[in-house]
Amino acid sequence: MSDKVKQILSCYESENPGVKANLTRILMHGKLGGTGKLVILPVDQGFEHGPLKSFEVNPDAYDPHYHFQLAVDSGVSAYAAPLGMIEAGASTYAGMLPLILKLNSSNSLHSLTSDQAITASVKDALRLGCTAVGFTIYPGSAKCFDMIEEAREIIAEAKSCGLAVVLWSYPRGEGISKEGETAVDVIAYAAHIAALLGANIIKVKLPTNYLEKEKIEAENIEPLFKRIEYVRKSCFAGKRIVVFSGGESKGIDDIYNEAKEIKQGGGNGSIIGRNTFQRKREEALSMLREIMGIYT
Amino acid sequence: MSDKVKQILSCYESENPGVKANLTRILMHGKLGGTGKLVILPVDQGFEHGPLKSFEVNPDAYDPHYHFQLAVDSGVSAYAAPLGMIEAGASTYAGMLPLILKLNSSNSLHSLTSDQAITASVKDALRLGCTAVGFTIYPGSAKCFDMIEEAREIIAEAKSCGLAVVLWSYPRGEGISKEGETAVDVIAYAAHIAALLGANIIKVKLPTNYLEKEKIEAENIEPLFKRIEYVRKSCFAGKRIVVFSGGESKGIDDIYNEAKEIKQGGGNGSIIGRNTFQRKREEALSMLREIMGIYT
Amino acid sequence: MSDKVKQILSCYESENPGVKANLTRILMHGKLGGTGKLVILPVDQGFEHGPLKSFEVNPDAYDPHYHFQLAVDSGVSAYAAPLGMIEAGASTYAGMLPLILKLNSSNSLHSLTSDQAITASVKDALRLGCTAVGFTIYPGSAKCFDMIEEAREIIAEAKSCGLAVVLWSYPRGEGISKEGETAVDVIAYAAHIAALLGANIIKVKLPTNYLEKEKIEAENIEPLFKRIEYVRKSCFAGKRIVVFSGGESKGIDDIYNEAKEIKQGGGNGSIIGRNTFQRKREEALSMLREIMGIYT
Amino acid sequence: MSDKVKQILSCYESENPGVKANLTRILMHGKLGGTGKLVILPVDQGFEHGPLKSFEVNPDAYDPHYHFQLAVDSGVSAYAAPLGMIEAGASTYAGMLPLILKLNSSNSLHSLTSDQAITASVKDALRLGCTAVGFTIYPGSAKCFDMIEEAREIIAEAKSCGLAVVLWSYPRGEGISKEGETAVDVIAYAAHIAALLGANIIKVKLPTNYLEKEKIEAENIEPLFKRIEYVRKSCFAGKRIVVFSGGESKGIDDIYNEAKEIKQGGGNGSIIGRNTFQRKREEALSMLREIMGIYT
Amino acid sequence: MSDKVKQILSCYESENPGVKANLTRILMHGKLGGTGKLVILPVDQGFEHGPLKSFEVNPDAYDPHYHFQLAVDSGVSAYAAPLGMIEAGASTYAGMLPLILKLNSSNSLHSLTSDQAITASVKDALRLGCTAVGFTIYPGSAKCFDMIEEAREIIAEAKSCGLAVVLWSYPRGEGISKEGETAVDVIAYAAHIAALLGANIIKVKLPTNYLEKEKIEAENIEPLFKRIEYVRKSCFAGKRIVVFSGGESKGIDDIYNEAKEIKQGGGNGSIIGRNTFQRKREEALSMLREIMGIYT
Repeated sequence: MSDKVKQILSCYESENPGVKANLTRILMHGKLGGTGKLVILPVDQGFEHGPLKSFEVNPDAYDPHYHFQLAVDSGVSAYAAPLGMIEAGASTYAGMLPLILKLNSSNSLHSLTSDQAITASVKDALRLGCTAVGFTIYPGSAKCFDMIEEAREIIAEAKSCGLAVVLWSYPRGEGISKEGETAVDVIAYAAHIAALLGANIIKVKLPTNYLEKEKIEAENIEPLFKRIEYVRKSCFAGKRIVVFSGGESKGIDDIYNEAKEIKQGGGNGSIIGRNTFQRKREEALSMLREIMGIYT
Repeated sequence: MSDKVKQILSCYESENPGVKANLTRILMHGKLGGTGKLVILPVDQGFEHGPLKSFEVNPDAYDPHYHFQLAVDSGVSAYAAPLGMIEAGASTYAGMLPLILKLNSSNSLHSLTSDQAITASVKDALRLGCTAVGFTIYPGSAKCFDMIEEAREIIAEAKSCGLAVVLWSYPRGEGISKEGETAVDVIAYAAHIAALLGANIIKVKLPTNYLEKEKIEAENIEPLFKRIEYVRKSCFAGKRIVVFSGGESKGIDDIYNEAKEIKQGGGNGSIIGRNTFQRKREEALSMLREIMGIYT
Repeated sequence: MSDKVKQILSCYESENPGVKANLTRILMHGKLGGTGKLVILPVDQGFEHGPLKSFEVNPDAYDPHYHFQLAVDSGVSAYAAPLGMIEAGASTYAGMLPLILKLNSSNSLHSLTSDQAITASVKDALRLGCTAVGFTIYPGSAKCFDMIEEAREIIAEAKSCGLAVVLWSYPRGEGISKEGETAVDVIAYAAHIAALLGANIIKVKLPTNYLEKEKIEAENIEPLFKRIEYVRKSCFAGKRIVVFSGGESKGIDDIYNEAKEIKQGGGNGSIIGRNTFQRKREEALSMLREIMGIYT
Repeated sequence: MSDKVKQILSCYESENPGVKANLTRILMHGKLGGTGKLVILPVDQGFEHGPLKSFEVNPDAYDPHYHFQLAVDSGVSAYAAPLGMIEAGASTYAGMLPLILKLNSSNSLHSLTSDQAITASVKDALRLGCTAVGFTIYPGSAKCFDMIEEAREIIAEAKSCGLAVVLWSYPRGEGISKEGETAVDVIAYAAHIAALLGANIIKVKLPTNYLEKEKIEAENIEPLFKRIEYVRKSCFAGKRIVVFSGGESKGIDDIYNEAKEIKQGGGNGSIIGRNTFQRKREEALSMLREIMGIYT
Repeated sequence: MSDKVKQILSCYESENPGVKANLTRILMHGKLGGTGKLVILPVDQGFEHGPLKSFEVNPDAYDPHYHFQLAVDSGVSAYAAPLGMIEAGASTYAGMLPLILKLNSSNSLHSLTSDQAITASVKDALRLGCTAVGFTIYPGSAKCFDMIEEAREIIAEAKSCGLAVVLWSYPRGEGISKEGETAVDVIAYAAHIAALLGANIIKVKLPTNYLEKEKIEAENIEPLFKRIEYVRKSCFAGKRIVVFSGGESKGIDDIYNEAKEIKQGGGNGSIIGRNTFQRKREEALSMLREIMGIYT
């Protein structure tokens, strides 16, 4: 085990050895193994945005095995997906890569409230051989306290079973403007809430230079890496792993630049879904190789 | 066991042998046994639309034994119904055909929200000798997250007992226009949600060429079989069994044409309720024979 | 379903439809399907007598798949085995034949008391897709009341889940002489105890003309079929299915004669383990074909 | 993952993906990763024989970290130990090697019966990040049925949580002579019992050419590899992983020869405790390197 | 917190912060706070030997408050007693000193078997504000496996509630000679068993130079401190706290000498009951001051 990973683990001082072992499995796996950086492949967009919008641009991606194989071949740190996607490959790919079972999901057919349904359990994660569970909260939503209480129960159960916990902390809902959802002060706040709830790995969106509630000098939040620094500080001064999602598909140079800024700002890495599987396989592999090269 | 059925089962790689055995029982039963296709007879219309609307046109159908006998004589793959209907014949017809116990039901006396009541349990399915349980979700409804969470619990319990799970995924409710309920993009989305929840067999309505959210070239969604292909792809690239309901009673040629399109588009079969039992018995038997001939 | 099977099922009037369905699955399966007769292949001799003594004479039989395949190819009514043997093939052979999970087992390394250890559960039977559970009691043993109480709990749980129950009722122990273990009066008594405990299918050894406790005219217990008649009467006047095991391997003509006597005496069939798998595969298939021909 | 490991996993067809993932972790770890062979380091001799007898010859071995470090540095497949030993290093070595938590233990202060006390739980294994649990049964002992029933419950619970199960099957007790404890027929029987109970990995002692119950031609059980073949066949024709313990400390050439015979006979590897940690560290590392070289 | 205590705590690497906090409370309390040494006052002799034998020599000691006050005034590290004794002072002395609730007890009216009755629970310890629970096992006794299994459950429950665990490991019973109960090899073995069970603090009797099972050169076990070294090594090379009881009341110089030997041998301290409260209060206070001076 590398010194860098040892140092990261030492920050999780109250976790039992099972949680530490599973964090280690993620941090030591794949091309970034040992660097303290990680790239996660998440495929929950079918749930969130529908299969056609998610996969039609690269129809091979309709097949759940496609993503397992992509995760293995690219050497990313872990693969995250909802129950059905994991079940469809967990046996074939048993033990070949760290799996993160996403335990709740939204869907865009339902647009009235910012909430998610619980769609799998900690027991499912154990029987499917997962390394961690994932859960989304929407700070700012009218359902936010319910979601946080669901998160609390799942975090406690998962950790008692030695599973690591990844929290997706996505501000949205009644309390926040649309632009504010990615405001740097709001993202930092959301990341901090996840840390306070006991998340082992925190996933937030890339922060923009918009400010929803705070006043910060423009020079302190430009360029992106300075905003990353705020988020990193909000994750217990860097003592919790934080990864960033780029969100919608975009140009490849933008993605590389974001990775560089994340690295410079002290973030732990990226979680890249659509920008991976909505490209052709070879292009996606090349892109992931490049990104992981940046983080190395 | 046929190679076709073996291939289908291999896609359910994380299921326990009990679930696989019950899927096999459905896939090997009746006239379509071994073909990988299936026709299911569902009789939950009494719950959904009332007995007079459902059965008065063919009064023999008021008697629950009528449907069991029709299912046996026609050689369909399975018979699905709510608790009372199953209890009324499960002893007489014990072991003679695969039964699917429908665990929740709506009714049209209650029209305020798109929701269903849970009306039976996994334990009921076991004591009644059923092969699978059925459950409906309404993606797009305000109650959708509640229904999905109910589904999750029932799916986990049923599979732990070796029962297969059939999800009826019917988009409706606040988030969707009336026409959108059968829009091809919405149906594909609903089928995908069912797959993500761990359904073994997915039941959706036949998709129309209406588009609720996506933009697809007209040539790609006409005729019907091209829309079936979208739905099939959305069921994990065909790795999950998907069957289609025709909905309201209609002309017999329309029904045959639909079956041909379903077959051409790679769907696994039909679930035909009203169009079966709202015809006279001999006519229904003849129609089912014809449909199963198409699928063979 | 045949009239014969319907008549048999009518005797199980208090069972729920699930138990009836699973009994029907056994009675309608294979070459004897519908005749009301059955031949069961049991492979628990590895547990009882050790693997070398059981399988070395026909080494292919070390492989658990060998027995599944033999049961499928021969068309016997069901295959019975302990947990590990069932797990080793339940997925490959899912849904292809009725499985009976043997829930307790003895072993001949332990020779102090006549008892068995519980080695699997009703839940195991469900997740493995079994049709029935099997359980052994030793009437006459010092542990007999304990075993009967274990049987009672398992019978109640299995039936509540719709599983059929097969009881192996083998008199032995402190209360019975060695010869008495197969005495016709003792065997009839053991069969009756199983019926009283609620067994759906009763398995006993072939009764000899020895008498342990009763006085019966010699002409009434010779030849074998007259002893079978006593046992059959003891199974609620033939209202419970009773099958006979031949025990140690023997000449093939003896086996055929026994089947003829069982049939003449009104027994429901045979359970033939060692005499099957300790022969070469082709010879075993030929023998089973002949035996099932006798029962037809 | 290597083809060899894939082939081994395919034999565990009824296990859930979690169990398969943890078996894979063991089979892909260390120097033998991917070969289908494994060498396990067990340190339960302190419990069984006392600390002075176990560690005084190499006092560094009193320290629990010594064994973790030895397991890591040597590249063995897994490290097995009782609760206290695992707790003493599970945090420092989190995620660095597969751990097997031994759930029951005997001790030689208590010499009246052949039994063990349960000293840890499946929940302990989860919170400590273990890959498998270990459990000992004593076939032939008066307590054998009790131990088997304890094993059954632990096996069911462990597998439902995705943990693999290693059974130590050590014949001893009232039903077996002292020489018979390692008789080839008895060892094969003990291995078969473990397989029937659902063990994923079976651990037995090396069989001698003594025969307790069976008659086998001397030429068929000499040399050792022919006895290994009997044991391997008794593990479902090689479909279950079987490893052998050498027992008491012995000369290094004997150990190498045993490994060669195990390999030739088709065994999956060795479990080497005292012969490892009762040598000086450098000597032990050299020995393990040599043994793993033999298995490669 | 002192470096010494930090170093000791670092050896308890898998314990949760609650257990660590309670260990720290004991290690930082009283006159020995911060030294890594501890002296515990246990008053369970009333249970073990009766009140007259225990207290008549110093009748003030009949009053439970006497012992609390003595513990407070002397500045010992903790006070250990059975339920009734703790309940009789826990409110008056709440928060004034670390309390260890002894959860099982023997009594000398019952002399047939070496066993103890469970007389209090982990919940009692919590509601009484205790810092740790105490439990006795008798390695070598016919009841030893039962006691170990009781200990396992209590250890798991106590630690999950953040309580520290003290195991009294006293060899006795069928497997051990009377002299062997304090033989150095047996005491070392008993201490090791306690460590393997997960004890945080191990209490054993002072070892004599008798040898029950091992052969050790006389020069290696004389004087006492060399025997202490064996016991210390058997407690995971000194990674577990081990304290020694002097046993029967004796001359005060013997007690001081024992403390010196314990210190020289690397033991962590003494647990002194009868030698404390069977002296007059002032004499006891003086003696404890002297002993703690030796350990400082």
